[in-house]
Amino acid sequence: MTDIILLGHGSGGKLSHQLLDELIIPTLSGVAQRDQNDAAVLNHGGQRLAFTTDSYVVDPIFFPGGNIGDLAINGTVNDLAMAGARPVAVSVGLILEEGLPLEDLRRILASMKQAAQSAGVAIVTGDTKVVPRGKADKIFINTSGIGVFDHDYEVRGSGARVGDKILINGSIGDHGMAILASREGLDLEADIRTDSAALHELVAEIIAAGGEAVHALRDPTRGGVATTLKEIALQSQVDITLEEAAQPVRQEVAGACAILGLDPLFVANEGKLLAVVAPEAAESVLAVMRRHPHGAEATIIGEVTGASDGKVFMRTAIGGLRAIEMLAGEQLPRIC
Amino acid sequence: MTDIILLGHGSGGKLSHQLLDELIIPTLSGVAQRDQNDAAVLNHGGQRLAFTTDSYVVDPIFFPGGNIGDLAINGTVNDLAMAGARPVAVSVGLILEEGLPLEDLRRILASMKQAAQSAGVAIVTGDTKVVPRGKADKIFINTSGIGVFDHDYEVRGSGARVGDKILINGSIGDHGMAILASREGLDLEADIRTDSAALHELVAEIIAAGGEAVHALRDPTRGGVATTLKEIALQSQVDITLEEAAQPVRQEVAGACAILGLDPLFVANEGKLLAVVAPEAAESVLAVMRRHPHGAEATIIGEVTGASDGKVFMRTAIGGLRAIEMLAGEQLPRIC
Repeated sequence: MTDIILLGHGSGGKLSHQLLDELIIPTLSGVAQRDQNDAAVLNHGGQRLAFTTDSYVVDPIFFPGGNIGDLAINGTVNDLAMAGARPVAVSVGLILEEGLPLEDLRRILASMKQAAQSAGVAIVTGDTKVVPRGKADKIFINTSGIGVFDHDYEVRGSGARVGDKILINGSIGDHGMAILASREGLDLEADIRTDSAALHELVAEIIAAGGEAVHALRDPTRGGVATTLKEIALQSQVDITLEEAAQPVRQEVAGACAILGLDPLFVANEGKLLAVVAPEAAESVLAVMRRHPHGAEATIIGEVTGASDGKVFMRTAIGGLRAIEMLAGEQLPRIC
Repeated sequence: MTDIILLGHGSGGKLSHQLLDELIIPTLSGVAQRDQNDAAVLNHGGQRLAFTTDSYVVDPIFFPGGNIGDLAINGTVNDLAMAGARPVAVSVGLILEEGLPLEDLRRILASMKQAAQSAGVAIVTGDTKVVPRGKADKIFINTSGIGVFDHDYEVRGSGARVGDKILINGSIGDHGMAILASREGLDLEADIRTDSAALHELVAEIIAAGGEAVHALRDPTRGGVATTLKEIALQSQVDITLEEAAQPVRQEVAGACAILGLDPLFVANEGKLLAVVAPEAAESVLAVMRRHPHGAEATIIGEVTGASDGKVFMRTAIGGLRAIEMLAGEQLPRIC
């Protein structure tokens, strides 16, 4: 490792994993191997609770389709949902830069309230700090959340098995490209909007339909679909093979990615989930997803093709196999 | 209100309260009156849970007696403890500035681990973000926490009654003056150290000894003893009168405050609690506090002297009464 923090340490890719695995987790916990799931599951009085935290530092704070406020609520709701939990309570920690217009703060808080109401979670506690100009960037938001379980089984990243299908609930790369276009003031003809959405109801329907055939769930945020599938492959010790022709990428997102030299497979999503489902249940789960507003364009993008040490491949249109690795560093900083 | 965020909005004083009461709470919650307690209490399957969040932006990040890491753990442990809960799980959200030396991060994380172990809480989940140089200041840490209750009754800020005694577990102003001396490179002859400590065991003993005679508990952090007592007075609709001669201020802290024109009553503490206790139980609670390592210098600093709309007075050495109000803005920015 280097001896200072690099931007790439926040990318969600290889440098992030290295920082976590070699410094943060061993130092904080004393354990060598981390639980890579987005939420911790605690036992309380014989009942399970999910607990998660996320800080949001997205730049810009307002972007097409949302802002840092609803992003923060939806992100934490989704981390709980991916553990199979029903989100119930959220905390809000604000770090404000001196000089932030109160009107901006008001708009962000109003979006948080609306997102929380829409997701059925209560904002129950909070904290506000202010730092001098130049010591933060407008506003950073931490949202932590508690969820409860309405069922007995566990959904984790380590459950993928050979033969499982990989389902996604819609197009990939929308959030990252919306942020990037907005940040850089790119005059992309098309209006690319964030896909930020609370997915807990979709998850509840997936679990109700698929039950224990749902082997893993994860939201492909920082690092995108590629990084998230690589994590699942590593956790589950399987190979995953994607079909290039089956990747759902909006034409305008594909176009913007092409111009900028980015691969949509590595671009962040904030309203997408990857479900790893036993083959016999895949079609019924897909049907349920497609009936939900956040899953109308759900599709199967690949499958678990073998037991291994965790490889991800893309089968190209002409039939070749391309290995997909995590990016070392930062494709798009401050995407969430 | 102004139309931009000022440093004073983070002070814990009048501007902070105004921001919370006029913008943040109404916009986030839609309710006019906020629950001013440091932790929210949730019901889960018939059992109560405490949930709290705090972001730490202290400057400097290392100071005599501690650093931002153990401060963050102890602060969240204390917020849970002040609700009468036993802390069980903590989350850690890191916002790192590009360029932060990994060795600094390692020291901070090691302090967090040690503080968590010492407090008997598990760090169960986390998140790490990185922002470019100049977009944050070295490291900001959010800690959120979950606590459980080993007893049935509630300790809140609104329970103070006429006749109650105000107890504190030791000297005031140590943390704030340690930070200030360290930040400004003041060559104060004396070594002033933070009082940062986890108070949940002391709280458990106070509750075991005082039971329902413990009417309110609060840790006097930002804004100090004066602001915290003003909050309790307002919440409980009582007057509180402090005895000037009874305020426990270390000589070196008093000296530094005098040089800098600060009132120790408004200076932050990170290992102190204020207990508002029925008069018949005050001496026995005080005795228990004094037997605890974090309460050896516990003392009674005042009492609840009447029902009112929430005034705090200081009875001076010559018998006068001085009204104590919250500071409008910032006495010491970025103290925690």
